Amino acid sequence: MDVEIMTIGDELLYGQVVDTNSAFMGQQLGRLGLRVRQITSVSDRADELVAALDQARARVRVILMTGGLGPTKDDLTKHVLARYLGRALELHPPTLAHVEEIFRRFNRPMLDVNRQQALVPAGCQVLPNAVGTAPGMWLEDGETVFISLPGVPFEMKKLMSDEVLPRLQTKFKLAPIEHVVIMTAGLGESFLAEKIQDWEAALPANIKLAYLPSLGSVRLRLTGAPDGLPELRPRMLALLPELRARIGSYIFAEEDTPLEVVLGRLLLEKNYHLGTAESCTGGAVAQRLTSVPGCSAYFRGSIVAYDNDLKMSLLGVQADTLAAHGAVSEATVREMAEGARARLGCEVALATSGIAGPGGGTPDKPVGTTCIAVSTPAGTVSKLFVVDRGRATNIEYTSQVVLQQLWQQLKGAAE
Amino acid sequence: MDVEIMTIGDELLYGQVVDTNSAFMGQQLGRLGLRVRQITSVSDRADELVAALDQARARVRVILMTGGLGPTKDDLTKHVLARYLGRALELHPPTLAHVEEIFRRFNRPMLDVNRQQALVPAGCQVLPNAVGTAPGMWLEDGETVFISLPGVPFEMKKLMSDEVLPRLQTKFKLAPIEHVVIMTAGLGESFLAEKIQDWEAALPANIKLAYLPSLGSVRLRLTGAPDGLPELRPRMLALLPELRARIGSYIFAEEDTPLEVVLGRLLLEKNYHLGTAESCTGGAVAQRLTSVPGCSAYFRGSIVAYDNDLKMSLLGVQADTLAAHGAVSEATVREMAEGARARLGCEVALATSGIAGPGGGTPDKPVGTTCIAVSTPAGTVSKLFVVDRGRATNIEYTSQVVLQQLWQQLKGAAE
Repeated sequence: MDVEIMTIGDELLYGQVVDTNSAFMGQQLGRLGLRVRQITSVSDRADELVAALDQARARVRVILMTGGLGPTKDDLTKHVLARYLGRALELHPPTLAHVEEIFRRFNRPMLDVNRQQALVPAGCQVLPNAVGTAPGMWLEDGETVFISLPGVPFEMKKLMSDEVLPRLQTKFKLAPIEHVVIMTAGLGESFLAEKIQDWEAALPANIKLAYLPSLGSVRLRLTGAPDGLPELRPRMLALLPELRARIGSYIFAEEDTPLEVVLGRLLLEKNYHLGTAESCTGGAVAQRLTSVPGCSAYFRGSIVAYDNDLKMSLLGVQADTLAAHGAVSEATVREMAEGARARLGCEVALATSGIAGPGGGTPDKPVGTTCIAVSTPAGTVSKLFVVDRGRATNIEYTSQVVLQQLWQQLKGAAE
Repeated sequence: MDVEIMTIGDELLYGQVVDTNSAFMGQQLGRLGLRVRQITSVSDRADELVAALDQARARVRVILMTGGLGPTKDDLTKHVLARYLGRALELHPPTLAHVEEIFRRFNRPMLDVNRQQALVPAGCQVLPNAVGTAPGMWLEDGETVFISLPGVPFEMKKLMSDEVLPRLQTKFKLAPIEHVVIMTAGLGESFLAEKIQDWEAALPANIKLAYLPSLGSVRLRLTGAPDGLPELRPRMLALLPELRARIGSYIFAEEDTPLEVVLGRLLLEKNYHLGTAESCTGGAVAQRLTSVPGCSAYFRGSIVAYDNDLKMSLLGVQADTLAAHGAVSEATVREMAEGARARLGCEVALATSGIAGPGGGTPDKPVGTTCIAVSTPAGTVSKLFVVDRGRATNIEYTSQVVLQQLWQQLKGAAE
């Protein structure tokens, strides 16, 4: 069963907003065994939305729309959809009561545009939006299901899990596509491909391999299409020992799990606590580590010492070290990491210092020059590298490299 | 002149990767006066890519593709495009030399799949990729321009600015669309709309207003289409005084600038230094502040005190305060912010403490209970709020609220 995701709004086409909704919806639909055939982002113009609906309808049986349901003038989805399907807009009293209740709760005056959010196309099943004022809508027309959700991510997510996915599950019953994801770090896409060439060539016809590279990491995704035979997933998992034999030392997880979650498990296992001492990453490593629910069991804290004074006063870096080697040096990051272990009271600490750019480079230390260190009870390891891909990417890459280094040291493997 | 952006790869449809390329390309194309008519994400299947190319070709004159140019088996774009346009693949010697040079520089063995990256469709203009192995391609066929770029964001970005945009500028000469962006914080979309209803209704026909809400902030975007009259932009700017008269106290910038950049300017102006003391945000506020190039002129550092011990030892929070009020309390965040000013040596500091969830809530302090404080030489202001929209959103929202509070205090406005 094919689905098309349609995200609506000029802001997407102008690039003023990144469409994160589609990825979330794609993941959720894939788990149900529905295949996203295409993602289409269209403007707020009625004629273009209608043209996109016409084409989507010829491709798929389910069209899942987000956006254009807000209270303001540029929000047209509901009106266009009603006209497109030849339905009148009707007041939905439970939605009106819900909107009124929200405004009462926040003690705000109710506006006429807010009242209009309770209008829905005739014959539509309303998907109640517990966390916002615009309801979701489910409309069937001939063979096609049209679903319209608000574009605000947390409202869309709640409506997807509470309303859309259960209804899709009831309406269509299909053998789910199986995914097996293998997370690797430390080896580029083409080198991985070379190492597993024979293994990849021998995959069964219904199992496809994809390489999903991101900064410093490659996700390998096996996708198994139902072949009528039982136990597709166990057969996919049975392919893994041969994969491990080729690239085992680069695999940090055999499920779709970020490195920071794997690190959390390793730290808990070893009963280690973690802290960070950050300069160029400015808190980005701590932020990534604390994105994990329950991290307070092993994450103690972080000192972001952007200023050299603070590297000395808060982390105990020696003035002599800074004078002799500079803030961006292996000597300094080693003292930062060791200082963080002591000051943050943790067995393991990592440190970063670099020139993220675009300014601050010197002939000696150009932009992108970066040092990292990881200190554990077994000792301190440091590294220097020079890669400049712009400030944001430099920060992200440094965060990835230092977490990879931490993983190497925690799992106790040779570098 | 209409453009279609086409992003290629199963990983986009499965939602395993968020498509950030389209937003970047949309912004860049818009600045040139090109209009993105549609963004289409399609699979790695040749038949579906061909169908999408057929439809795009009927809609637009420029099709800008990313993805599917890597060295591995699932990368099909170049092959499909060559076949679609009836061109053979030919070796491009300068690209081969460039790929060989990259492998020499990194001292890595050159693989056959890497050599194949130097194959391009006959008659194509190669767009040299200085930062990667897959070249960009520019193909003209009849009235249509097909552009194919690698999907790795920093490679795509460099090729866009160095190659694609200059070539588009040369080929098509059009009056650019004008955007004026007004950044607001602290008032929801429908309340803003209500306050500026009369102003919006009086806008000229060729100037459209859009509301782009994000967490705690609404961007207002005026888009002016060329109307044959001179000075479109000055006429758009002349609309702003009347807008300011209605919502001036919520406007933090009259350009498309993030709050953290505006804060940096205010801090520099007042010669203040800033630090953060973070608990629930785990470094996210520092990360946002340090995303700004040149922030070291005013940002000193941050103490992420996840653990209560560290709130005391590093920030000087009193044990009595924690015992009497708990870590998530206005009393504690006030002491955190004031402690950070002293320990980080800065005139201004902010603090966060909350229950980000999903665990850790109590009947008294449910998940989403959050306290923030901002301390300046004029005093310390704190706030408590309870909003739960999931861990990641709670962290992002708290970061936004505390930065908004900082802005309020820096600009010296009444709350």
